[in-house]
Amino acid sequence: MSIPRPRIVIIGAGFGGLEAARALGKSEADITLIDRRNFHLFQPLLYQVATAALSPGDIAWPTRSIFQHRKNVSVLMAEITGVDTVARTVTDGTAVIPYDYLIIATGAAHSYFGHDEWSQFAPALKTIDDALKIRERLLLAFEQAELSTDPEQRLRCMTTVIVGGGATGVEMAGAIAELAHRTLLGEFRQIQPEKTRIILIEAGPRILPTFPAHMSEIARRSLQSMGVDVRTGSQVTDCNAQGVALSDGGHIDAATVIWAAGVAASPAGAWLDAARDRAGRVQVTADLTVQGFPEIYVIGDTASVRGKGDRPVPGVAPAAKQMGQYVGKVLAARLLGNATAAPFVYSNLGDLATVGRKSALVSMGRLEFSGFFGWLFWCIAHIWFLIGFRSRVVVTFNWIWNYVTFKRSARLISDRD
Amino acid sequence: MSIPRPRIVIIGAGFGGLEAARALGKSEADITLIDRRNFHLFQPLLYQVATAALSPGDIAWPTRSIFQHRKNVSVLMAEITGVDTVARTVTDGTAVIPYDYLIIATGAAHSYFGHDEWSQFAPALKTIDDALKIRERLLLAFEQAELSTDPEQRLRCMTTVIVGGGATGVEMAGAIAELAHRTLLGEFRQIQPEKTRIILIEAGPRILPTFPAHMSEIARRSLQSMGVDVRTGSQVTDCNAQGVALSDGGHIDAATVIWAAGVAASPAGAWLDAARDRAGRVQVTADLTVQGFPEIYVIGDTASVRGKGDRPVPGVAPAAKQMGQYVGKVLAARLLGNATAAPFVYSNLGDLATVGRKSALVSMGRLEFSGFFGWLFWCIAHIWFLIGFRSRVVVTFNWIWNYVTFKRSARLISDRD
Repeated sequence: MSIPRPRIVIIGAGFGGLEAARALGKSEADITLIDRRNFHLFQPLLYQVATAALSPGDIAWPTRSIFQHRKNVSVLMAEITGVDTVARTVTDGTAVIPYDYLIIATGAAHSYFGHDEWSQFAPALKTIDDALKIRERLLLAFEQAELSTDPEQRLRCMTTVIVGGGATGVEMAGAIAELAHRTLLGEFRQIQPEKTRIILIEAGPRILPTFPAHMSEIARRSLQSMGVDVRTGSQVTDCNAQGVALSDGGHIDAATVIWAAGVAASPAGAWLDAARDRAGRVQVTADLTVQGFPEIYVIGDTASVRGKGDRPVPGVAPAAKQMGQYVGKVLAARLLGNATAAPFVYSNLGDLATVGRKSALVSMGRLEFSGFFGWLFWCIAHIWFLIGFRSRVVVTFNWIWNYVTFKRSARLISDRD
Repeated sequence: MSIPRPRIVIIGAGFGGLEAARALGKSEADITLIDRRNFHLFQPLLYQVATAALSPGDIAWPTRSIFQHRKNVSVLMAEITGVDTVARTVTDGTAVIPYDYLIIATGAAHSYFGHDEWSQFAPALKTIDDALKIRERLLLAFEQAELSTDPEQRLRCMTTVIVGGGATGVEMAGAIAELAHRTLLGEFRQIQPEKTRIILIEAGPRILPTFPAHMSEIARRSLQSMGVDVRTGSQVTDCNAQGVALSDGGHIDAATVIWAAGVAASPAGAWLDAARDRAGRVQVTADLTVQGFPEIYVIGDTASVRGKGDRPVPGVAPAAKQMGQYVGKVLAARLLGNATAAPFVYSNLGDLATVGRKSALVSMGRLEFSGFFGWLFWCIAHIWFLIGFRSRVVVTFNWIWNYVTFKRSARLISDRD
């Protein structure tokens, strides 16, 4: 009589889910990796898709291709909508998939702080689709400015507001400044794209709050030298068809508003009816399982985990990867009969943020640098973590080409309805 | 007193419009190039976007970037909806743009022979959006087959029908065979993608009817050796949610149906109220102007032109380019006072069609070859005509990578609503 192989279901093929599946790929278990998309997305470079520097295919890989040779890993494209913790199954509303162990790695979505109606005016940047929508709005605004004869309308078309001064907001502001002030230079006959207004709005006292204060200052100065209007201590109180309203009573007319401010965890916490923090992230135990459910792990942006000094582990790619690797190893050991696991410890590798061409901030413990060498470091680090030879070559080539010519490779306004 | 510069309006930035603008770029005239998209598309490789081998950005270039340094060329993104031949203006419904000379190069769309309701079931391949829609359907069908437990449903998901055996249909059939039978090999656990049924339906007696008969036979055999079911002399009488119905009374259940059968000219003929042929193309005079309107030229797929032996000039890229170059030169000479023009003569450079990896047909007058050298010739010819260094490098690299690994670079099922 053969013992049935344990069934491990992983929901989400982001950084966390992918690492967990990889770490488990050699274990004697049947692994099902489920994602609502058919690809793994390298989210740190998504802002480059939104600003026409890269194509979606450059930073996304078919999940099943990654696990082609791991015959015990099945990849399914389905959107999970619920977990039955008693029957131990997950479902997408049609299929019911049983599990012995469950790893939830469903990530996070953007949050408009209770104002979901703002999303139509101020798209956020989480998915390929978001990036293409933002790319379309950015490029279309210049075309409309060129066609317009009304100076006010033209000014509005040539104004972009970015809400949120974290890494995404800063990277978007820098990339849009490059696009408008350099790439489009000389291509219009009625407008001067170099006069585009780019306004970065941050509610807190400084941009890049996870960096040391003096590095935030470097970033602010870099952005200003690129023509970005950086406004800290300013809160957006409304987004509408015309632009944004600010807490100081002002209003900015802008054709393009980009939301880079809030993040909310996926609804996985509700599926489990588990304790959650304010952002909706599931409170997990020291080994990343859910209290009362030793067979359910929650990792990545969906998990609320504390690191050194009781500081929350940030919702960044390296943290998700570390949790995925940890759970993969712990679970592989459990399958071999080793039930006790050392608690998960987050190792903060540091922070990276790029501020347009030729400048990036690197903060890794005592090691801090910025400027051109920071930018080179940033480039190499990102190329390193891309999956596969093809993406590395194509992204490197596109970056060099972009660097030399200022041109961007994917300046398409798509014609979908 | 200065003489006002003549205003030349070109509608359409396809092969014809682009060449006309280039040929006129150095003349003493103000040129306005209008297109409803912001990019020029290299349509001959669109089937590779539809089959996930290339990204849209690889075969599309921002039109205004192409004319960045031609200061007398203005590029506008607008969808022209009418021409006033008396006032000599064109309009998009809002702006009114005056012309002294007008060049209409608005191309062609697909035709469902009076059955426009088929388009939802059988998308055609004319735009980037069409290509992404087809890519999504093709890839999604395999994901659905993997999830399905019903054998009939699974078979339907793994059946693709291509309607029309011209160059587009043949190239799609070959590329889909490669995708299904090679790229996806070993990536699924429940289905065997190598068993995908690919059915090419042609109403006429042979595929590739513009080629000599013996080359059609080579193409048919190549496709059959790749596992494509080629059915000539068979007509599609209905497309519906389940699949297609055939003139012999049969019905094929297919999740993916691709329309590569009919072409209709753009509505430019109706704008002018000019004489048109059955496909809606405008009857033009020997110098490609419209009878009674010596200031209006119609070129490319929108024009009905006769070549050697009174045979119609085909709706292909080289013909559109030749007409664009001809009109550009003739009009430049007219502006210099040279009013008489030699008639347009179409020079048939030959036909090219690729049948999957390693095989292509080349028919250039007496020169005919096929197989691997045909395929190399096809690759070089297409790389040659791509615009710009970046696209040539990226497409070449993607092809080599695809050739060596069988992998495809843009296998994304987009998540747009």
